[in-house]
Order: sequence, then C-alpha cells, then structure tokens
Amino acid sequence: MIQIPREGSDGRPVAAPKAVVRKLDILRKAAAAFRDRGYAATSVRDIARRAGMTPGNLYYYFRDKQEILYFCQDYSLDVLLREARRIRRRALRADEKIRALIRSQVLCMLDELRGSAGHIEFHAISRPRLRRIIEKRDAYERIVRAVVKDGIREGRFSTCDPKLVSLAMLGAVNWTARWYRPGGGRTPEAIAAAFADYLVRGLRR
Amino acid sequence: MIQIPREGSDGRPVAAPKAVVRKLDILRKAAAAFRDRGYAATSVRDIARRAGMTPGNLYYYFRDKQEILYFCQDYSLDVLLREARRIRRRALRADEKIRALIRSQVLCMLDELRGSAGHIEFHAISRPRLRRIIEKRDAYERIVRAVVKDGIREGRFSTCDPKLVSLAMLGAVNWTARWYRPGGGRTPEAIAAAFADYLVRGLRR
Repeated sequence: MIQIPREGSDGRPVAAPKAVVRKLDILRKAAAAFRDRGYAATSVRDIARRAGMTPGNLYYYFRDKQEILYFCQDYSLDVLLREARRIRRRALRADEKIRALIRSQVLCMLDELRGSAGHIEFHAISRPRLRRIIEKRDAYERIVRAVVKDGIREGRFSTCDPKLVSLAMLGAVNWTARWYRPGGGRTPEAIAAAFADYLVRGLRR
Repeated sequence: MIQIPREGSDGRPVAAPKAVVRKLDILRKAAAAFRDRGYAATSVRDIARRAGMTPGNLYYYFRDKQEILYFCQDYSLDVLLREARRIRRRALRADEKIRALIRSQVLCMLDELRGSAGHIEFHAISRPRLRRIIEKRDAYERIVRAVVKDGIREGRFSTCDPKLVSLAMLGAVNWTARWYRPGGGRTPEAIAAAFADYLVRGLRR
C-alpha cells in the first residue's frame, strides 16, 4: 500500500518522503494515460514517458502495468474512504453530510487520480487484488447508504430505497470522470456544487 | 444499420425478417459477453458459442468483433433516441416527460443490450464510426436537456444548470449497467421507478 502523507502528532501535515511523491506522480500520469488511450492501449513505456523517466526507472517503483492500475484504484479509494469516514463522524445533519460526501467524491474523481476509483477494470486485475478493491468500494457505499438511512430516520429525507438512491448518487458522480475535460467550462468546484444541490434536493421531504 | 422492426401501415407491429432477429440475438449475446469478460478478453469464438453458431456462420452477419461492438452501441442508441423523440412529442408536463425518459433509459440499459449504449468503448471503435455514435449520444443528451429547460421555463423545476443536471441524471442511469445483476433482488421496473422518483424530485421547485 502506498503510504498517504498524514498529520504529525502536532496536527501539522508531515511532508511525504520523496519515493511516495514519485509514486503518486507516476499514478497520476498513468491515470491520465489510461483515460486518454484506454488501459489496453497504454504501455509502461507511455507512462514512463509522461512521468519523464525511463521504463527501467519506473520498474523500480512498480512491477508492471497491472500493478500501476491496481495502485491507482487502491490509492483513490483510500482517499475517498478516509474523507467519508471523517464526514460521517462530524456533527452535521444528514443532508449536510450527503452534500459533503458528494463534494468530496466529485473533487476526488476530477482532481485526484482522474476517476480511477470509479472505473474498476474488473478484467485487468487479479482476483485477490480485485477483492480488496471491491471491499473498499463496498465500504464507501455502505457509508453513503448509512447517511441516507440516518436522514430518513431523522425525518429529513423522504422514504425511499436507500440502496437504489445511493447507487443513483454514486453513478452520477462516478460518471463525471467519463465526460469531464479540464478547461471545459465548468470547474470541479462548480460541478461539485451543482451535483450536491441536485442530488440532495431529491432526498428531501 | 440494423433495421429495427416497425409498425406497418395498419399500426400493427410487423414481424422482423429472420436475418434481423438473428443479428439482434448475436448482439445480445455479444453484449453479455463484453460485460462478463470485458471487450478485450472476448473473442468472436466466445460470442459464436453463446449464440449457438460456428464462427464461420457468425462472420456471415458481422465482419469482426469491432463491428459487433459498433452495432451493439448503434442499435442501443437507436432504440433510446426513437423512444426519447416519441416522449418529447407527447402532450405531457416536463416532469412527466423526465419520468418517462428515465424509465425508458433504465429499461433500455437493463433489458435491451445490457447497457451497450452507456459504455462507449472509445478506444475500440474506428474514428468515423465513433463520430456517428457520439452524434447519436449527443442528440439523446440534447433531448433530455431540452426537457429540463422546458420545466424551468414552465416554472415547475427550480433554477439549475440544465447541462450539469442532465449529466447527473444520465450518469446515474448509465451506471446501472455496471452494478445491475439479473435476479439480484430489484427488477428493472423497480429500479426505473425508484430512479425516476429520486431524479425528478431533485428537479422540482
């Protein structure tokens, strides 16, 4: 697992070691290549070129293309999950939590690894790794569903099928990685705000 | 283009010629194989086996795997567009039209060619064909957006960015093809109804 830079005991962020920064840079370049050309058509050489390094140097960090894909998705889901758990614990109303979850997920989709978390390439990852990815994705979905249920219980949200409504919400957000183009007229922040408005309004009584 | 069975001059449906029925059956089997195993890992032999025919016989209908993928998406989009144009012309309120559009799209995604329309494999289709597919997809999105604008103008829907709201709606529906499993507890009709409720409620003032 790639260690994500965390806060130190004094609460201030700790600088990430150089190797972690390098690995994350490779993942970002790889995610962009997968999106632009498709996973199948992207070679390790392509990724190395985008990251400004030789293929030999890249193999020092990752064994093969499949491992890069796996870490793209794994890292992206770690970021999503960490944020979702933080939001769940905050002293907010259910509708505020859903807003925060949607915003955090849109920004993660469009800013972090360009939607890696949403686009699990089921057919390109080994079974044990796929299982770990799916466990994290399911854990994320459970948090969203739990907040929807909280909102129904509190009487803020209208009665609905929390599973289907959560899937609609996640689908809308995951799909952004398919149509979003940087510089295309709407910033990630504007998309996050519009999606949160629309998707929270549909829950209210 | 695969001719879709239409109504005769007496308004009654006309039976499709045998070759059309066979082609559609091959597309259905291919769409299921692409979903189960991924496009890259599916061979023409796999598709022929599922359709109960020899590869040689299948080549009588389609030149190669890429052509099958193209016709899956093309046919699926034709069905979607035909329905959307019909709904747009009907004497309904904007919210009723959005309901009908969502229902028709969910059912098309889950019943027809298992979401082929939503999963354009940009990297596997030749440029001229991709252009035609994208034109149809854009035509469909324009209809949804136009109905959202109608609803805002009529004062039924709250002010919003019609482009972003339409994309949220389409993303939620397209994503169903990623998680839906036949026999998984929710019928396509139940999913269509829950999605229409949620996604229309978010539009209302």
